[in-house]
Amino acid sequence: MAEEQRDLADAYARAGVDAAAEESGLAGLLRWLRPTLRPAGLGSSRVPFGYFATVLDLGDGRGLALTTDGVGSKVLVAQMVDRYDTVGIDCVAMNVNDLLCVGAEPLAMVDYIAVQQMHPRLLDELGRGLAEGARQAGISIPGGEIAQLREVVRGVRDGWAFDLAGAAVGLVRLDDIVIGQAVEPGDALLGLASSGIHSNGLTLARRVLFEQASLSAGAVLPELARSVGEELLEPTRIYVSGVRALRAAGVPIRALCHLTGDGWLNLARIAAPVGFVVDWLPEPPAIFQAIQRLGSIADAEMYQVFNMGIGFAVVVPPDEADRAAAILQSAGYPAWLLGRAVGDPERRVQLAPLGLIGEGHAVRPA
Amino acid sequence: MAEEQRDLADAYARAGVDAAAEESGLAGLLRWLRPTLRPAGLGSSRVPFGYFATVLDLGDGRGLALTTDGVGSKVLVAQMVDRYDTVGIDCVAMNVNDLLCVGAEPLAMVDYIAVQQMHPRLLDELGRGLAEGARQAGISIPGGEIAQLREVVRGVRDGWAFDLAGAAVGLVRLDDIVIGQAVEPGDALLGLASSGIHSNGLTLARRVLFEQASLSAGAVLPELARSVGEELLEPTRIYVSGVRALRAAGVPIRALCHLTGDGWLNLARIAAPVGFVVDWLPEPPAIFQAIQRLGSIADAEMYQVFNMGIGFAVVVPPDEADRAAAILQSAGYPAWLLGRAVGDPERRVQLAPLGLIGEGHAVRPA
Repeated sequence: MAEEQRDLADAYARAGVDAAAEESGLAGLLRWLRPTLRPAGLGSSRVPFGYFATVLDLGDGRGLALTTDGVGSKVLVAQMVDRYDTVGIDCVAMNVNDLLCVGAEPLAMVDYIAVQQMHPRLLDELGRGLAEGARQAGISIPGGEIAQLREVVRGVRDGWAFDLAGAAVGLVRLDDIVIGQAVEPGDALLGLASSGIHSNGLTLARRVLFEQASLSAGAVLPELARSVGEELLEPTRIYVSGVRALRAAGVPIRALCHLTGDGWLNLARIAAPVGFVVDWLPEPPAIFQAIQRLGSIADAEMYQVFNMGIGFAVVVPPDEADRAAAILQSAGYPAWLLGRAVGDPERRVQLAPLGLIGEGHAVRPA
Repeated sequence: MAEEQRDLADAYARAGVDAAAEESGLAGLLRWLRPTLRPAGLGSSRVPFGYFATVLDLGDGRGLALTTDGVGSKVLVAQMVDRYDTVGIDCVAMNVNDLLCVGAEPLAMVDYIAVQQMHPRLLDELGRGLAEGARQAGISIPGGEIAQLREVVRGVRDGWAFDLAGAAVGLVRLDDIVIGQAVEPGDALLGLASSGIHSNGLTLARRVLFEQASLSAGAVLPELARSVGEELLEPTRIYVSGVRALRAAGVPIRALCHLTGDGWLNLARIAAPVGFVVDWLPEPPAIFQAIQRLGSIADAEMYQVFNMGIGFAVVVPPDEADRAAAILQSAGYPAWLLGRAVGDPERRVQLAPLGLIGEGHAVRPA
């Protein structure tokens, strides 16, 4: 079992992201940052450090939700395709989807763009994507920073290298903060369809598609209707309208979970001492099947790294599951009942159809 | 005159930051972002786009101040010296000093760190600096993002490359927003001492010191008491306590200005149709004298790019100038009366002792 985990960690390290070092490095950083938190009063943190977003007490019964995230190595795919008008949507999505997870209503985002050179077309296209993301999320982008950092940023198209991140704010009544604290065994786990690879796992995807399989970004695989590059660039879905629709209908939401960095393992962040049993999974979108086939990757690693078709999850009381799914469908978000919460202080995620268990930072055979 | 400006722009472009392209690229981006602003109500922007920080209406008479900034190419100096425990202070400083400029009280910051590799020492030292910055600013750092982006980040010490940015929030009563709207001709301009080069002009400084003059980071110049690398790494001063002291004493503050990217030209951002006449300037700190001497740089360019010893400026009614300066001194911020506001819709900054005029994006001989 430990062996299994090490193998997966090794595989991921080979793909350029060292999960173990990440863990230890993160610990060293958090050691310094945790003590800065205010314990009570104005500006105190009402959500545990490391949750999808933080919530700061605004002193009037409301909380300011705050988070920051970037689009990761998806910027390299944009350079390969020489198209920059989609990653702005990813940048908004990565941030507002995290804000949703604490029960907040997203309000605004500021963007941070580091570029190798100030190409007007690059910035115009980044702006177009950011504005489209803002439109989809119903937020404003009232400021930002562009830094020309010729010697700090690099990429795969010389002169067009960039990094893109953002920080977003939202509002939530302190009484309405949701971090999964009320999830009970038996609660229904709903999965919302992703739009594709979103902004996670791009490092592994690029290794498999462009190095192992030696594909060009313009290559069209039999299972995909468009080029591999365009498929990888498909913007991350923004779940704001779906969650708003649930709230507007009065569905009691017990947890919200953005499936990002650790894929399905994000479910383990939920505050209540529960795990999840997933009884049914949609067929993974074609891009994941292509990556798995070309990279000969085991199911366990695929579900550890990628969203595999589910980009966001919502937990509701069991008798609200059908209604919630119908509301999400009507709002334009394909959603399925995937399984249920079970009492489990180890917070394991059992993917029953595949015989897999997710625990800690790894997915392994059950 | 136009020629003069072009020369300076060229000189700056040669140093790796193309001001003209920056301008045009920025325009292309802002064309998309401006329309996302909410015109009224909750979340509407109460400060013009492009000011030091934005302020979003929280709906209860308060505004949420929001800004984002990074430490720029100072990260490269940290790598040269192999010391990472100071740039976190710069990151906090660059953000909270901007928040101060709209009259806000800084509350919290989230950090965004992109690294080439997850070296525990690197992250530990970055965390130490961030925590020290948070302490000095009286804010919390309740969250952040570390992205391992091996193929996106580069630097001068292989494996230790990183980029560091942040986004900060603060609070201000809408009635108390200060963007210089009440500045009147005759108002006093106070300058607060910088701690050194801060986080701006590092590109030019590195060119001059490490390329033109071929110095090593460990070289000790006659005018400096420590190595050039350590001198450049001196953290940006955090002006929060000084501004708090002024506010606590009831000094009517008419404008606050963080002297960053464009050095003294930042004074032109002030809302009122005023310019400034500077009658007296402190002797520039030794690091600036060394850069100017070794690079044979004209005064005009020095004052356009660098803070030259003044990191933050405050405008107060003329009869409050002496009291304000004394309060700042007592709070540990050396401050001087530099000059006064004058009616000038062109918003020029006259540096009388040097015979220079700052206008638009350039400082030129008067």
